[in-house]
Amino acid sequence: MDQNNNIKDLPIGVFDSGIGGLTVFREIMSQMPNERLIYFGDTARVPYGNKSRDTIEKYSLQISRFLLSRKVKAIVVACNTASAFALDALIKTVPVPVIGVVEPDAKAACEATKNGRIGVIGTMATISSHSYDDAVHAIMKDAEVISRSCPLFVPLAEEGLWEDPVTDEITRRYLAELTDRGIDTLIMGCTHYPLLRSTIARFAGEGVTLVNPAYETAKELHALLEKEDVLTKKEPVLGQENRYQFFVSDMADQFKAFANSIIPYGILSAKVIDIESY
Amino acid sequence: MDQNNNIKDLPIGVFDSGIGGLTVFREIMSQMPNERLIYFGDTARVPYGNKSRDTIEKYSLQISRFLLSRKVKAIVVACNTASAFALDALIKTVPVPVIGVVEPDAKAACEATKNGRIGVIGTMATISSHSYDDAVHAIMKDAEVISRSCPLFVPLAEEGLWEDPVTDEITRRYLAELTDRGIDTLIMGCTHYPLLRSTIARFAGEGVTLVNPAYETAKELHALLEKEDVLTKKEPVLGQENRYQFFVSDMADQFKAFANSIIPYGILSAKVIDIESY
Repeated sequence: MDQNNNIKDLPIGVFDSGIGGLTVFREIMSQMPNERLIYFGDTARVPYGNKSRDTIEKYSLQISRFLLSRKVKAIVVACNTASAFALDALIKTVPVPVIGVVEPDAKAACEATKNGRIGVIGTMATISSHSYDDAVHAIMKDAEVISRSCPLFVPLAEEGLWEDPVTDEITRRYLAELTDRGIDTLIMGCTHYPLLRSTIARFAGEGVTLVNPAYETAKELHALLEKEDVLTKKEPVLGQENRYQFFVSDMADQFKAFANSIIPYGILSAKVIDIESY
Repeated sequence: MDQNNNIKDLPIGVFDSGIGGLTVFREIMSQMPNERLIYFGDTARVPYGNKSRDTIEKYSLQISRFLLSRKVKAIVVACNTASAFALDALIKTVPVPVIGVVEPDAKAACEATKNGRIGVIGTMATISSHSYDDAVHAIMKDAEVISRSCPLFVPLAEEGLWEDPVTDEITRRYLAELTDRGIDTLIMGCTHYPLLRSTIARFAGEGVTLVNPAYETAKELHALLEKEDVLTKKEPVLGQENRYQFFVSDMADQFKAFANSIIPYGILSAKVIDIESY
């Protein structure tokens, strides 16, 4: 009898500082429709992008303890800042496979670039961590990585200004120094940014390949679960409201409203938990 | 002998979710140059503007316990969201005088208005709390309060775009519905907003009086300390680096850099403390 059978049917845990990780969640739903998923958004302590390594590590470990208490078979760190700062600590501590968004992005960028000039945009914390530089250079030693923090992208995305003259103007400013330097590939190094995808693509220009953390992470997660032989074989028997569960640390109603603008089915509930107690 | 003598020379505690409260701190420095001040910015958990009442209350109580451990003689809640949600709980719990920013603003607005139409701008949490409506109506029953949340103002102020075409465009949108309704007084209901004062004034128009929470709160604090007879009589003997102390929950260096763009002397140090342990 296959020893992994019990494990296979356990859910996958996905977490983010808030709502950005829902772009990854949505992509996992689409690429692995048979899997059960648990999402945690740390809406009480969002955003992580302006916090220190110690704080982000502490929060990420609390969240992983919560997800393990719900018996997940794998954890996806669907937050670039947490991936940049806390992935090593999580891999050391957590007894199930853990995957972040940085390495899948770096791998995809190295495959896509022709001229070796790769742009990276992200939060202040992600960019100052240099984790994308390190991840790209581990694969492609001679690549030139040109990075830029874009602090207004998250609030603009959360304000719903996905297509707007103000977002255009901010995007033009943020991307100018990257396109001036001749990048041919641009990593959207924050899980919120796929919401601004079409604006970012327009200002990056036609010759630039965009790397989407949601798509790449879901693809890499599939490969990882396959390698570990823990992909579920079962057709979903549960309705979507049971197959997909949402937890937050605060503001469940607001989370639900935003999630319903991203996730392609009606989310019935998001439950508040006391994350500081984990 | 005056029993208050010991109390008089204790410092005043001022706190905010992050850096916005520094506009209040600066104004207290200017109006009461002899007082010692302790600032706490909750930079690990900033912003409060999108959090729930329970969470904001819990955080504010933790912070007041920290300030009391530093023996403050009064506490200024230099954050509109915390004033709106946590002031009652603080007044019930804390053994020293506590003052928020909502009531001083409401009082000043009622004194300034001629047509009884008062505009309020603030974070999502402040506006949805209706605390300004309540505070204004307690003074002026028939006033019409027209309010609007402005979620992008804080990130724009923190990005340093105090005077910028993007800030102009966002301000134009946010204020249009207030000016269309004929307000003659506008409460800047967030301690970050004085940083955008000149842009806000321009779009509010010449006939509109701006109410500045920093100025009004410092004025009200002076009146309160005078009434309680705990204003210090001493000329400052300490240098500014000892008279003014800064504590944060994270990112001390970044806080210091920003504080130095607001506070009119060189801040030497900001100390990180573990606020969750209070």
